[in-house]
Parts: sequence; C-alpha cells; structure tokens
Amino acid sequence: MSVTPLDRDDLRTRVSAALRAHLHRRRGRLALVGPELGPVADALADFLDGGKRLRPAFAYWGYRATGNPGSDALVRAAGALELVQACALIHDDVMDGSDTRRGKPAVHKQFEALHLAEKYTGSAARFGTAAAILLGDVCLIWADEMLDRSGMPADALERARPIWDEMRTEIMAGQYLDVLAQAQGGHSVDRAVRVVRYKAAKYTVERPLHLGAALAGGGPELTDSLSRYGLPIGEAFQLRDDVLGVFGDPAETGKPAGDDLREGKRTLLLAYAAERATPAQETVLDRHLGDPGLTDDGVDRLREVLVETGALERTEERIRALTARALDALAAARLDAESTDALTALAGAATARKA
Amino acid sequence: MSVTPLDRDDLRTRVSAALRAHLHRRRGRLALVGPELGPVADALADFLDGGKRLRPAFAYWGYRATGNPGSDALVRAAGALELVQACALIHDDVMDGSDTRRGKPAVHKQFEALHLAEKYTGSAARFGTAAAILLGDVCLIWADEMLDRSGMPADALERARPIWDEMRTEIMAGQYLDVLAQAQGGHSVDRAVRVVRYKAAKYTVERPLHLGAALAGGGPELTDSLSRYGLPIGEAFQLRDDVLGVFGDPAETGKPAGDDLREGKRTLLLAYAAERATPAQETVLDRHLGDPGLTDDGVDRLREVLVETGALERTEERIRALTARALDALAAARLDAESTDALTALAGAATARKA
Repeated sequence: MSVTPLDRDDLRTRVSAALRAHLHRRRGRLALVGPELGPVADALADFLDGGKRLRPAFAYWGYRATGNPGSDALVRAAGALELVQACALIHDDVMDGSDTRRGKPAVHKQFEALHLAEKYTGSAARFGTAAAILLGDVCLIWADEMLDRSGMPADALERARPIWDEMRTEIMAGQYLDVLAQAQGGHSVDRAVRVVRYKAAKYTVERPLHLGAALAGGGPELTDSLSRYGLPIGEAFQLRDDVLGVFGDPAETGKPAGDDLREGKRTLLLAYAAERATPAQETVLDRHLGDPGLTDDGVDRLREVLVETGALERTEERIRALTARALDALAAARLDAESTDALTALAGAATARKA
Repeated sequence: MSVTPLDRDDLRTRVSAALRAHLHRRRGRLALVGPELGPVADALADFLDGGKRLRPAFAYWGYRATGNPGSDALVRAAGALELVQACALIHDDVMDGSDTRRGKPAVHKQFEALHLAEKYTGSAARFGTAAAILLGDVCLIWADEMLDRSGMPADALERARPIWDEMRTEIMAGQYLDVLAQAQGGHSVDRAVRVVRYKAAKYTVERPLHLGAALAGGGPELTDSLSRYGLPIGEAFQLRDDVLGVFGDPAETGKPAGDDLREGKRTLLLAYAAERATPAQETVLDRHLGDPGLTDDGVDRLREVLVETGALERTEERIRALTARALDALAAARLDAESTDALTALAGAATARKA
C-alpha cells in the first residue's frame, strides 16, 4: 500500500489546505482590528501546520460509511475538529505547564519569548499565559465558524450540531477529571478508565465518527456500529499515547522524554503499576511521579517499575484486545469495502507503536 | 418610572430564568460524566447569578426595534450573550490575576480554595487556574448551544451567526490588544481608544444590537442606525467602567478599590493623565501604576493625579458627548416610541455613575 491510512483520498493534504484557507480569511479579520494581532495569527497558522488530522479522518470516514461520496465541504467540516483540538492542546499546555508541543515551544512559551525579545514590562510568563488562553479561545470560536461555513447543507449541519456540542462539553469535562485526578493523587484504575473515556476515547474517535455519520444522515444502527468500533479504538489510542508519553522517542512524540511523569499524569499505565507494586516500587512511584525536577535517572527508575510490575505488558495487552474488539465490531457492521478498509487502516494508525 | 431600564418587559428576570434552565439541562449532562463535575456546575450557576444582563437587553431591543414583538425564544437567544461574557470575565480574571469578581472570589480563587480545603496534592494556584480555564471554555461552548437551541427559527439563526462569530473574534482580539498594551506600557490615547472599541464598545452594545436586529431580519439601514447609537454608547460604557474601576465604591463595583491601577490597565483615563502630567505627576504614574503591592495611599495619590491633570473631567466630558451623540442618532433613526424609549433608558443605565 503506497498511501498511509491518513492520506487516503488525499485527506491530510486537503484538510491542511482547508485549514489554511480558513485561517487566511480570519487573518484578514484580525488585521482590521490592528497590526498587533499579526503574531496571534502567525502562532495559530504555525500550530495548525502540525497534527496528524486523525479526528478529521474519523469524521470523514464516518460520513463515507453511509455510502455517500466525500466532498470539499465535508473536508472543511471535518477539518474544524483540528481547531477544537488546537484549543484543547493550547489550553492543556498552559494548565500542565508543558513547555514543548509538537517539537516546538508551547504557545504560551512562544509568547513568553516574544515578551522577552520585545523587552515588554511586567511578567513574561503571565503575558505568555494570557496570550495562550486567548489563542485557545479563538481556536474554539473559529472551529465553530469553520464547521458552520463548510458549505455542508443546512439540514446536515442541524443534524451534526448536537453531536458537536456534546463532544465539546465532554472534552472539557474529561480534561477537568484529568486535572482533578492529578490533584487528588492516588492510583485508581476505575478513575483512569473514566478519564480515558471522556478525555480521549469519545472525543478522538467516537464523536468524530458520529459527526460524519450525522452530516450524511446516517441512522441509529450505523451510529451504534460506529460506537462499537470507535470507543475501543479511542481507548486504545489513548493508552498508546500514554505508553509513548513514557517510553516514546522524543523525536517522534515532539515532547521531552518523561514529561508526562514530571506532570504526574494519572494514567492507566500507572494505576496498573500501583496495583502490583512492591513496597519498594511504591516508594519509587511516590517519590518521582509528579516531581517537576525529575531527572533522566528518575525517569529510568519509573520506567523500570512500569516494566517490572507488568504494567506495560498489561497495557499493551489491553491495546491489543481493544483493537481486536473494534475490528470485530467493524466486520459485523458490514459497511462497504472501501470504508471497512479505511477504518481498519485507521485503527492501525491510531494505535501504532510509533507516534 | 417604576421599572429600571434593564427590567422592562421583565427582561432581567426572564434572562436569569432562561440561563438557569439552560444550566440545569447541561448540569445533567455533566453528571453523566461523573459526580466530580458537581463543583464545576455549581461554580457556573453561581457566577451566572450575577451580572446586569446589559448585553441581552441590547440584543432584545435591537430585535424589538424592527417592530417585532419579543418572545421567550428571543430571551433565550439574547441570554446566550451572558455566557460569552462569563467566559470573557473568568478568563480575564486568570489573565489579570484578579482575585475578586462581583464581590466574590474569582473562579480561579474558588477552585484554589477547593484544592486547599480538600488537601489535594500539587499547586493549589495551578489547579485553580486550570479549572477556571476549563470553566471559561465550557461557557463559550454552552453560549453557542443556548443560542442554537433558543427556539428561534433556523433562518433567523442563520442571519445571526455571522454577527455572533465576528463578535466573538473581536472580543478575544480586543482582550489581546488590552493585554499587549499593559505589557508594552506607555500611554497612547490612540491605542486606548482602539482597545475600548474592540474590547467593549462593539462587543457590549453594537454587536448585541446587530444580533437582535439580524434575528428579526432587520435591514442594513436599521443596522447602520443601531451602530450610530451603539458605538458611542459602548465607548461611553467602557469609559464609565474605567472611571468606576478607579473611583467607584467597592460595594457597588464588586472589586477592591484600585484593582485596575494595581493591574496597570492602560485606560483612556490614564492616557489623558499622561498627556498633561507634570514631571512630578509622571513620576507618580510610573511608580505606582501596575504595582501589585499598591497601598491605599498609593491609590489616593494616583487618584489625585487623575483629578489634577484634568483627566477625570476630560473623561466625564467625553462620556457626556458620546451619550449625546448616541441619543441624537437614536432620534434620527425614528424607531417606534417604545424601542426609542427603551434604548434611551438603556443608554442611561450603561453610562450611569453608579455601577
């Protein structure tokens, strides 16, 4: 196969072009407010240049699964998901105090650097935070606009709106659960699973699939089938992300090694480790997890605990089982060959061992 | 007159009821995600309990100005503006590090207090900030939903959408200009006027009026008339807000005296003062403005400079002139007697010397 799953139907290229076109129009709007808005538009364009376009791909194939052909309007509507995701990531990096995203300084760090370079007065960090909060807000607003002006028919948009709304509330609720879990500390498998479900599984896979199906007027039977495929793949995707966050190659993840451990993210991987940790291993977890000054050596010790407790292997096993369950559901759904083929490939891409 | 301008047609009561009903439905949605979301829903309900409902009132009367009668659907659509405003204020307080809003702890301070009370781990301030960022995002999302599900006809919503979108981009752009102005320091009358225009004038008055008019299908002539009335009133509203921020009674403004001065807000009031300051007065401005540890004594000295340079009187004069210009434009618009009467009264309410 010469194209990757995300490139089928030239989707990645087309989504990127649609985002650029949307931003270009909006940049003109910002320029009317003042030339000072230039850096805001630039930062956004730069940020949106990255990204795997995974959510648009699920939305696109959710639509195609109804048997309808794709269109540029559909690509634009699906592309709007990247702007929701941009808001989530930009705000997430502020909340976590993460300095790096997609191999570049996080947005708040970029504006902090602008403050320093221009020798502005007051706190550079506070300026960076403020700019990133506003930039995230702008992404959320422009996402809406991009969906709305995608060129999809009014009745299609009306069907899609409730899903769009649910999805956006769910992701913010999931993020809050995640922040709360970090603050509450401890390791609960049940809680970790719920965070994964809302923060990622529904939002990354199931809701985009539903959005696409709703745009095409797909019925409840299709929606259910897509859930049976989408929820396990979404969960597997997040578990893979958690594994890569600890064991991944920084050159591939775009984040420094061990960042998730430094932030003290309460992942299922860690909940599994805590369940089977010896007292000595527990001490390692307690001492190092969430330590902002965690060294490479500390990262290595935590990794050892994750391997030795079997947590890594259990997580990998769960990813395999979830993926298998999703593919069974997909087969049972009896979609057309092209959609089945595309969704099978997407399942692989979403859960692959490389970022 | 027994009713205040904001209470005509029972508007304040009805907007508050519409917001409560919307939040109640959404609270049910959050509960499905988990009981941990309770504090989020509570904080939001509490926050939205306050507010003068100024923006909904302008939207409502923008609609009524077309000669069409009001409705509950209209009240819901107009009420959505309060949720946009809630997002702006909650995020603004994080960006400015303001501890108080509407006489109560700011949202980020409330969640910081929750963190301390529950003895969570990690930084309480960081937790408060994260929760407030997410809560603001939720407001922005629910605003959309409230407009969309207001019950206004689909064609009305389609006409209103572009204005809704422009307005939301403008407010974020205006906020960025404001943050940037604070960081750049200095006192430019031109820049202060531009911040006022985007951050407040268009967003608080003109755009709500346009939104209402568009929902009713008002033509370009009405839209222009509403701008000629709305832009000066919006500017006057912000200037009044700036004056109250420095000279207002904390019991009325809901903010500690001198908070705006401590934050170093670059208002027109201060730009006027800088224009006519003696070297000694300039020193007072430079020394005290934006000083987080500003004492009551420092606040008094800054107030003296604002009075002695004539900045306060110039600002009051500008508020008077803008209000007069708006009322002239309103008279020239020849709307029906009831709308003219209501908009005249609203002009007074928006620029009154009491908060």
